[in-house]
Amino acid sequence: MSATGDLTRFLHDNIPLSAAMQLQASAYDGERLELTAPLAANVNDKGTAFGGSLYNISVLSGWSLLRLKLNEAGLNQKNIVIHEANTRYLAPVTGELRAACSITTDALTEILHTLQKKSRARITLTVTIYQQDKAAVEFTGQYVVLD
Amino acid sequence: MSATGDLTRFLHDNIPLSAAMQLQASAYDGERLELTAPLAANVNDKGTAFGGSLYNISVLSGWSLLRLKLNEAGLNQKNIVIHEANTRYLAPVTGELRAACSITTDALTEILHTLQKKSRARITLTVTIYQQDKAAVEFTGQYVVLD
Repeated sequence: MSATGDLTRFLHDNIPLSAAMQLQASAYDGERLELTAPLAANVNDKGTAFGGSLYNISVLSGWSLLRLKLNEAGLNQKNIVIHEANTRYLAPVTGELRAACSITTDALTEILHTLQKKSRARITLTVTIYQQDKAAVEFTGQYVVLD
Repeated sequence: MSATGDLTRFLHDNIPLSAAMQLQASAYDGERLELTAPLAANVNDKGTAFGGSLYNISVLSGWSLLRLKLNEAGLNQKNIVIHEANTRYLAPVTGELRAACSITTDALTEILHTLQKKSRARITLTVTIYQQDKAAVEFTGQYVVLD
């Protein structure tokens, strides 16, 4: 099965709200992960995307990308938790929710290096949700990786 | 019907993810609103509350309290949107999710006064999620009220 298929199944099996959102891992190239979710399951009283759904797809994008990279490095046993997050809503999302998160080689090297010496490491990831090709939500999350 | 019953029904009818979370407005005394949700519908891969669910119950606590107060002031036609939010996760939540938001008379007076003069106003609300009696999540949201 593909990395995106495996990830979608893991999320649905372990985080029931991701299944309720009909969240899908839609693209992954080793550096950039994209998650999508349909508007209907994530709509609010104004007919646009619910701010909570926009947060959820963002926090899961960063978390999932970090999980993929740690698994690729053989660190399958690590836990990843969100420690603090800031979310800025720039424009309403009126169609499919689409979030993208990237990790640089330098940031990945740094966290893997820290985890060789310590049992815990922190990393800040940014996630952008697009409305057509313009940023509608900017999310910054500080994640902690620990045993 | 009670204010809490009306609110729960409104949320479930208009924001499907709140129904998936089994969110309930559990207490409201005119100043302080409490929302609750069961762990099972909001669990993560670690068996504790999903960070996204903790965000959702927080953002909806502030939003709902503001909606109740604006409705009580006769401003039923206003829209309330979340503009920016900061979320700090202090401890895992291992049981029912329970979020509380309060609004002071001064803060309410100020926003109603602004809305008499302008079509738009901002307000910052804080929400706390409790694990037993200790704060497990601290949420600060900046909401915009507009026509």
